[in-house]
Amino acid sequence: MESNFGGIVESKSKRIEESVAGNGLLHRRVFLTQAGSIFGVGTMGMLGSETTNAQNMQGRPAWMQSPGKGVGAYGTRARFEDHVQRTAGSAPGTTGAGASRTPLQHLEGIITPNSLHFERHHSGIPEIDPNEHRFLIHGLVDRPLIFDMDMLSRYPMISKIHFIECSGNSRVSGLIDEPVDQDCGVLHGLVSCSEWTGIPLSILLDEAGVDPSARWILAEGSDSAAMSRSVPMAKAMDDAIIAIYQNGERLRPDNGYPMRLFLPGFEGNTSVKWLRRIKVTAEPTMTKDETSKYTDLLDDGTSLMFTYPMAVKSVITSPSPGLDLNGAGIYEISGIAWSGGGHISKVEVSADGGLTWGEAALSEPVLDRSLTRFRMAWRWNGAPAVIMSRAIDNTGAIQPTRDSIIAEKGMKFAYHYNGIQSWAIDAEGRAVNTYV
Amino acid sequence: MESNFGGIVESKSKRIEESVAGNGLLHRRVFLTQAGSIFGVGTMGMLGSETTNAQNMQGRPAWMQSPGKGVGAYGTRARFEDHVQRTAGSAPGTTGAGASRTPLQHLEGIITPNSLHFERHHSGIPEIDPNEHRFLIHGLVDRPLIFDMDMLSRYPMISKIHFIECSGNSRVSGLIDEPVDQDCGVLHGLVSCSEWTGIPLSILLDEAGVDPSARWILAEGSDSAAMSRSVPMAKAMDDAIIAIYQNGERLRPDNGYPMRLFLPGFEGNTSVKWLRRIKVTAEPTMTKDETSKYTDLLDDGTSLMFTYPMAVKSVITSPSPGLDLNGAGIYEISGIAWSGGGHISKVEVSADGGLTWGEAALSEPVLDRSLTRFRMAWRWNGAPAVIMSRAIDNTGAIQPTRDSIIAEKGMKFAYHYNGIQSWAIDAEGRAVNTYV
Repeated sequence: MESNFGGIVESKSKRIEESVAGNGLLHRRVFLTQAGSIFGVGTMGMLGSETTNAQNMQGRPAWMQSPGKGVGAYGTRARFEDHVQRTAGSAPGTTGAGASRTPLQHLEGIITPNSLHFERHHSGIPEIDPNEHRFLIHGLVDRPLIFDMDMLSRYPMISKIHFIECSGNSRVSGLIDEPVDQDCGVLHGLVSCSEWTGIPLSILLDEAGVDPSARWILAEGSDSAAMSRSVPMAKAMDDAIIAIYQNGERLRPDNGYPMRLFLPGFEGNTSVKWLRRIKVTAEPTMTKDETSKYTDLLDDGTSLMFTYPMAVKSVITSPSPGLDLNGAGIYEISGIAWSGGGHISKVEVSADGGLTWGEAALSEPVLDRSLTRFRMAWRWNGAPAVIMSRAIDNTGAIQPTRDSIIAEKGMKFAYHYNGIQSWAIDAEGRAVNTYV
Repeated sequence: MESNFGGIVESKSKRIEESVAGNGLLHRRVFLTQAGSIFGVGTMGMLGSETTNAQNMQGRPAWMQSPGKGVGAYGTRARFEDHVQRTAGSAPGTTGAGASRTPLQHLEGIITPNSLHFERHHSGIPEIDPNEHRFLIHGLVDRPLIFDMDMLSRYPMISKIHFIECSGNSRVSGLIDEPVDQDCGVLHGLVSCSEWTGIPLSILLDEAGVDPSARWILAEGSDSAAMSRSVPMAKAMDDAIIAIYQNGERLRPDNGYPMRLFLPGFEGNTSVKWLRRIKVTAEPTMTKDETSKYTDLLDDGTSLMFTYPMAVKSVITSPSPGLDLNGAGIYEISGIAWSGGGHISKVEVSADGGLTWGEAALSEPVLDRSLTRFRMAWRWNGAPAVIMSRAIDNTGAIQPTRDSIIAEKGMKFAYHYNGIQSWAIDAEGRAVNTYV
């Protein structure tokens, strides 16, 4: 271990003094509202008072000894962060069908970097030349229209920060008989959040002239699966976007380059990627992608269909499996919450398996159908504990327990699972998925 | 040219019908408030009514003929977007001193992707091993403290979307005798915007115990230039952040990996990258970086010093040099506005060189010391025109004209230029930097 500050012997201890003045274990804003030192002295290494400033700076690390690399055209991340990756899985026997999941436990804030946005492809990523791509609006319209990318770029755009979640997200975290021992990203990483910029679909539909008999649209992708979904006209006219930019730059190929439909709050696959056409229809088209998949099979053999909005949900990203606690002391509990029904109004956190709950702090901005970051201070006493979070949105919807979901819907359905996630922390500080 | 929709002959015309019902040339929300078709029929290619849906889909592009590429661990952008790059420039005779500028004209929304965030290095990018990096707080404190990255990660964090702007930004757009013929990114691309996550500096300073005599801090980087700046204690205690994450992932090396100071609204170089120490002091340290640079030389030979906040500013990113208009018709004017003094309250746009102004629409969210996207519809009649934008923030500060800045400060200063940017559009639709 190289010392950056010559002559100083650093404490290697990661222990934090327990000096919280509050009574409880959970503190919503303890760090910001209580006066004076929270963590106390000796946090990392407290320097003796005889240590002079000059002494502190005698030793300089290797990277200060010579000039570093110059500027570049398109930056890359540090090699020390290469382990932060999406967890990829493909369907057996296929090359392009599969999903990759955002490593939620390694991220902070609400924006997901484009390189780590989750993926779900039904037949791989088509490599589309934007100069040759065309987008068709047809069906029950007065004037069928074809657009190219140059033409689309002249239409008025809007920008919105929204999450998108695959409706199959979190199934493995709750709908298996025994808790699956995986990390937060594998269990819940089919959700990501970006700033999306594009053209309101309503403007283009108005341009084409929608027939009064039209109640639905069909959206079809330009992948080799021609993945297609039916969407109610009300949604298409309300807040649907033809997205062209994601987090400032053009969409990535794995998110629909050069254009995708984006339906705020709806299950992810309805935001059809590589969008090539929208057909205006009277009834839903009943495509393979909404009959063989994306319906929720109930215990009585019937299925829920067209269950578009993603329900209110949250998960603690830290601590979580793989991010072990290092001895008793104070930690920040950090997590994300979201709802397809609106914005998050409250997140509650429990550190005793749900017996008592405290209200977490929400990081601004708290936006409509966006990830919202919540945080709470926790003084861990070193004993086994179960931590969990529960989100509530502005419609009053409350994230349910696993038990209540199974009582209502059984365990045969594969989509729209939004149960409370519990992490069991053992005496060594290791976190694992648990059913409570 | 391959046709995606078999049997349909596409119009190659980029012309948009001029069918706006309004009286003026500029329309703040024309597309959203006026009923009926805006652009009119025949936009790209209007399909004949005899064209059946089946016919439309007979031809399928090459990329639909076989499965595409599978999922990946860390995504990349489309090869068709490789031309979107930072414009790099290094100081003569150096390897690592220089800057690269964000290609603002190719981006949309407010978030800058990390790979395209502007850079400014005084001696290159150090390659810092986060496991060996240490951060020291010393000087006029009760308890000098050293932190490593693991320890810092246990402190409470906050996330904020903020712009950062080099104080030398835009100098070449207004403080040269003749207008420089460059694109928007080269002229104004030393500004970017991200979600920053980190620890409030006030918490760490409280931990160390600040002496009542302390009025300033010195922040020093771990680059080989040991770039260092003095910052008033009031700012350090107000909203300074020790940033660790940028747009969800860890900071990039070119933005201070593994940690930087972040001072919302202050000139960029004070947000010291690769932060290795903060020394608490009674007076400013008068480092080389704030005496030889980052002071504003006036005509009378005196200099303005410690001029931290970046002033209210805006620029139209589209149309702009390189993004040529293609014939008379309707276009969306899109741009960014920001202020180190607060949030943007209004952006006005002129298409007649400043004779008349209209109010642009601001895209939500409009955040404190963040980029704000503004948009306005413009019907170009094909004659030469001068377009410009003027931002106003919530303190009432108004972006000034070039003339008024030069009358007040002369032309010797190199920092904090925030004059109105005018783009002259010629009859061929080409946009160039102009002084009006």
